Amino acid sequence: MSSIPKIVILGAGYGGILTALRLQKELNYNEADVTLVNKHDYHYITTHLHMPAAGTDNPENARVSISKLIDEFKIDFVKSTVVQIRPQDKKVILEDGTLSYDYLVVGVGGEPETFGIPGMSEYAMNIRSINSVRLIREHIEYQFARYKREPHRSDYLTFIVGGAGFTGIEFVGELSDRLPELCRQFDVDPSIVKLYNIEAAPTALPGFDSELVEYGMEVLRKKGVTFKIGTAIKECTPDGVIVGEGEEIRSQTVIWTGGIRGNRLIEEAGFETMRGRVKVDEYLRAPGSENIYIVGDNSLVFNPEGRPYPPTAQIAMQQGVVCAHNLVASIRNQSLKSFEFKNKGTVASLGKGEAIGIAFGKKYKGSTAAWLKKLIDLRYLFIIGGIPLVLRKGKFL
Amino acid sequence: MSSIPKIVILGAGYGGILTALRLQKELNYNEADVTLVNKHDYHYITTHLHMPAAGTDNPENARVSISKLIDEFKIDFVKSTVVQIRPQDKKVILEDGTLSYDYLVVGVGGEPETFGIPGMSEYAMNIRSINSVRLIREHIEYQFARYKREPHRSDYLTFIVGGAGFTGIEFVGELSDRLPELCRQFDVDPSIVKLYNIEAAPTALPGFDSELVEYGMEVLRKKGVTFKIGTAIKECTPDGVIVGEGEEIRSQTVIWTGGIRGNRLIEEAGFETMRGRVKVDEYLRAPGSENIYIVGDNSLVFNPEGRPYPPTAQIAMQQGVVCAHNLVASIRNQSLKSFEFKNKGTVASLGKGEAIGIAFGKKYKGSTAAWLKKLIDLRYLFIIGGIPLVLRKGKFL
Repeated sequence: MSSIPKIVILGAGYGGILTALRLQKELNYNEADVTLVNKHDYHYITTHLHMPAAGTDNPENARVSISKLIDEFKIDFVKSTVVQIRPQDKKVILEDGTLSYDYLVVGVGGEPETFGIPGMSEYAMNIRSINSVRLIREHIEYQFARYKREPHRSDYLTFIVGGAGFTGIEFVGELSDRLPELCRQFDVDPSIVKLYNIEAAPTALPGFDSELVEYGMEVLRKKGVTFKIGTAIKECTPDGVIVGEGEEIRSQTVIWTGGIRGNRLIEEAGFETMRGRVKVDEYLRAPGSENIYIVGDNSLVFNPEGRPYPPTAQIAMQQGVVCAHNLVASIRNQSLKSFEFKNKGTVASLGKGEAIGIAFGKKYKGSTAAWLKKLIDLRYLFIIGGIPLVLRKGKFL
Repeated sequence: MSSIPKIVILGAGYGGILTALRLQKELNYNEADVTLVNKHDYHYITTHLHMPAAGTDNPENARVSISKLIDEFKIDFVKSTVVQIRPQDKKVILEDGTLSYDYLVVGVGGEPETFGIPGMSEYAMNIRSINSVRLIREHIEYQFARYKREPHRSDYLTFIVGGAGFTGIEFVGELSDRLPELCRQFDVDPSIVKLYNIEAAPTALPGFDSELVEYGMEVLRKKGVTFKIGTAIKECTPDGVIVGEGEEIRSQTVIWTGGIRGNRLIEEAGFETMRGRVKVDEYLRAPGSENIYIVGDNSLVFNPEGRPYPPTAQIAMQQGVVCAHNLVASIRNQSLKSFEFKNKGTVASLGKGEAIGIAFGKKYKGSTAAWLKKLIDLRYLFIIGGIPLVLRKGKFL
């Protein structure tokens, strides 16, 4: 049995789960031992988390049990947390055990990048897991309940979203739908509620088509969002945030969506990193390690102009496919495939029935874009779980 | 117009709303001006609040819009908060105005009695209004979400109910149904969750049939409730409670159901009070004031053995009926009716499908008692709102 190569996949995010699914499909019987390790026994659909965070959807619809995705006759699943990666020993230390590997796939996901803003890690919440979005949802509802007891505390009903990238904008879109609903539910005058979206860059959705960005911001402004663009958060405190030239916005709820960096585990493993991400070779391997692949938020891939691609679900999925191909090729002594990102378009939702996007080289907005977003989400469910998953979860999108 | 007597009713609780409904029925056209004043534009069904507090029912099902109950052609409704009652001027000062009266009905409800336990008013929550139960529900859910971020904080999942009277027991019954549901929802191991019911008296439900109490406690124990009976809470702190001989139970959630006293407004009005309640005469009038009736938690009525009846919905409703009768009789110079409490029985729910009760001179337990409880609630809906209200709200009971 020892002659069968051991593949260990760390993380069941987009990159890890796609790698696992493809290996499951492409490997022949007894060609390799594959073990998938994940902190939770479910995979979550990160691009959907803005909805349960705002409370416009049930968190259950943003996760899928791993046992429903992988075939446990072909892939072993270990629910555990990775403590340390030891490339020199070809070992991974888990919270409750150790795994040896011949090939390793690292897709343990990113961590919030707070750019050293004081107080941000302590006092802000992040949209990054099922647990974190349940916390945000409950926290927001709780502020309404608290306000009814202490009606002088308007800071309970001031909500601050730091960062107007994709996650920030999509979350603000959902929250602007949800807040009027909470006002009705808790008998609160909607004019008391404030929703700020604060972004240090000179525009929302930096890098995105400016006409669509303008349209999107207008949609959100009409739903009550106050934008502060080109305004840096200087500090996050228990009482709110300090922005720009020292202005304080008092709030009990700060959600930070300003950035993702790599992972401490990657740095500690001794890989060369930039913001916790590894600049992988063309085959997605860690430099100097022919048996270690790095995917998703943990990897850094550059476009032909030499600038890093932002970490998205789309790129992670494509990486997973190539990573699985290269693992199989390595085992079979075939030649590896270079990774090349194919941008299939991007759609940002702005809440119910509204979105902006670019796909197939065209711009979309309004309900057509919202429908496109739904199609992308359905396609993803189909890719990972086939028709049964589409039927089970798709109706909630 | 000045010859028409003005009746002002303060509070739309059980006593106030019943008075209003009966006046609406019995008074002839132009026989009196009736104004009902209430802090909210809804009446709430206090005996149902333990359910939305635990989260086993929607708070909407525990309230009824006052405009659905009273006929605004016959009774004026003023949504305002009473600031001061001035019997000598025959005036009531509201937050945003003043009302003169010829006859006054005071039914502004009670306040939690904390018996001077340090920290209890600051750190404990109470089951006493729609706002307060929404706070409790949201607070409890929030603790589960917080626990997932800080799994070493088991005090987030320790819930303390102070007082094992009717409210305490009924709330504990609901919460013991709700906690396993929350464990599933938040992926929490149920063995981590603790639910304490602490009572200083030597028994739960003091004064109730001891065989039924024993049965009820056994039902609740099986659902995971830990009773500490004959154990006084010495202090409530931000970290939990100190009980008995200095034992600390760490918890972020203390709900105090230990008692109800009268109202500060009553004391400030110059009436003679005991714990903020007025010992009314046989016609339910404040001693020495022929034109002021006091009902519900604000009044104190003694049984033939000379002991005060506990303040319940049942007694408040019966008072409302007699109060309205006596108001009409006064206006018509007819003779007044003495108030006599007729105990029609008592049922305490213990969560889904379980209850204990005494009615028609018989003991009930289990599902029969739970059904009886439902009938009592339906009957109340019928009394205040007729068949339409039973149809609208009754299905949720």
